[in-house]
Amino acid sequence: MSNTSAPAPAPASAAPVTVLGLGAMGQALATAFLTAGHPTTVWNRTPDKADPLVALGAVRAGDVTAAVAASPLVIACILDYASVYETLAPATGALAGRTLVNLTTGTPAEAREAAEWAASHGFAYLDGGIMAVPPGIGTEQAFILYSGEREVFDAHREVLERLGAAHFAGAEPGLAALLDIALLSGMYGLFSGVFHALALADSANVPAAEFVPLLSSWIGAMATAVPHMAHQVETGDYADGVVSNIGMQAAAFGNLLRASEEQGVRPDLFTALHSLMQERVAGGHGAEDLTGVVELLRNRA
Amino acid sequence: MSNTSAPAPAPASAAPVTVLGLGAMGQALATAFLTAGHPTTVWNRTPDKADPLVALGAVRAGDVTAAVAASPLVIACILDYASVYETLAPATGALAGRTLVNLTTGTPAEAREAAEWAASHGFAYLDGGIMAVPPGIGTEQAFILYSGEREVFDAHREVLERLGAAHFAGAEPGLAALLDIALLSGMYGLFSGVFHALALADSANVPAAEFVPLLSSWIGAMATAVPHMAHQVETGDYADGVVSNIGMQAAAFGNLLRASEEQGVRPDLFTALHSLMQERVAGGHGAEDLTGVVELLRNRA
Repeated sequence: MSNTSAPAPAPASAAPVTVLGLGAMGQALATAFLTAGHPTTVWNRTPDKADPLVALGAVRAGDVTAAVAASPLVIACILDYASVYETLAPATGALAGRTLVNLTTGTPAEAREAAEWAASHGFAYLDGGIMAVPPGIGTEQAFILYSGEREVFDAHREVLERLGAAHFAGAEPGLAALLDIALLSGMYGLFSGVFHALALADSANVPAAEFVPLLSSWIGAMATAVPHMAHQVETGDYADGVVSNIGMQAAAFGNLLRASEEQGVRPDLFTALHSLMQERVAGGHGAEDLTGVVELLRNRA
Repeated sequence: MSNTSAPAPAPASAAPVTVLGLGAMGQALATAFLTAGHPTTVWNRTPDKADPLVALGAVRAGDVTAAVAASPLVIACILDYASVYETLAPATGALAGRTLVNLTTGTPAEAREAAEWAASHGFAYLDGGIMAVPPGIGTEQAFILYSGEREVFDAHREVLERLGAAHFAGAEPGLAALLDIALLSGMYGLFSGVFHALALADSANVPAAEFVPLLSSWIGAMATAVPHMAHQVETGDYADGVVSNIGMQAAAFGNLLRASEEQGVRPDLFTALHSLMQERVAGGHGAEDLTGVVELLRNRA
């Protein structure tokens, strides 16, 4: 009884993969697998979306069930979770014993619900959040968050790394979606600040070449505060290491709003923060740090 | 007629300096001058604020006029511009021929008005914006923006560098205040995003040690978009280099808001951005980049 009598499984580098959904992101995912040499089966509701991938060597499946049957690892990147259920309804039998990695954008609750649905049909499930735009897929700029059973992630990690750095967010199925949204909110906040800053600089005809180095180095310097802020939220101690308290900042904030108005720049992106600062001060936390507004966002204050 | 017969001016390293206003920031400014060996005269409305500085070697002036008369370079860091005028009203005669560097927080319009006031009284004027908290003054973490006549800045630059890196923002007197506010808005946007992100991570009990490296590296990666955004604003070409257009982002933004709601996180910090995105899409710019919201902030769209 030697192990050598059993056929060796295909090496990860040649593992077959199926991609469902061929929008810009799905096409980028399939292209990355094809480029890395994986036998790749593709399916899309409108089949001609597969044409450029077939030209690269992909197999176009005639229907979802055939697409699922072609590979032990199935990647879905569809419009939304409702479309995932609708698309895969005829193929849940074919999925049994396989792994579905759902990279469709959704909320943590949707991810948890999908994990239960997968379990009820006897297939493994990872939920994922793509932190990249399509052109970044398959490059070192991309990273993708995954949550679900650790062993399932480990079993497919090498293949998933074709798409970008694979980050395991945790066993709770909603964690990838949660961290995805959290990182996006960090990005949108950063961009909001940059937009307001650029509007102000533009209002005074300050050349980009002059303002960008200042803004970039300033943002880099301010971003070094993130670990301390996270520590304050984790401990709930917003009096820890205060340098410029929220009371002083709330008072000085009027200057930012007045200057914006003077320059003809709409203050929209900062009115909510100003209200939260005032709410926090009114709640008796004026001597604490700005980070305390997180308590308001969490409805705990 | 040899130049050697005239007494050499004191080297910049020993130039006398006067600091008006001894709140936390004024005290930090005076301390930095004293530490660097400058003869430093200080004044504050409530005189005992000068006690710790006198202990370090500062001279306490009996009134504002005496304080101004003590040094060719006078730094003011007072509550607001109204207080600057009120404080210096009795001393405008003493200021004639000297230089006032006003580091009081204000708007660009207030700075321009102050520059006219200084010119009408025959003294040189620089307006400044301090990009530091008091403990940072005198360290390499601090930088200070200055605007006004370039020759005035150059004449005092070496002394001003005692406080932190001195950045000349331009001859237009409001530019230092403008760039100060612009950079602060960049910071407050960044912090808004971080707060929302931390609230979401906290809602799922993600440890700070796990989330902070992800968030920091993500913010660093996203901040590399700033030069392109600034270029788009400068050229007004928001269709340039679009990867994920504002129409797609506006549609996907609902996911961020729904996920936040599910997790019990108030969406306040992102409702204005969402509205601006929708406004931009409704204006027919859905295929352009997110940066186009700057046109709305500038009331040009």
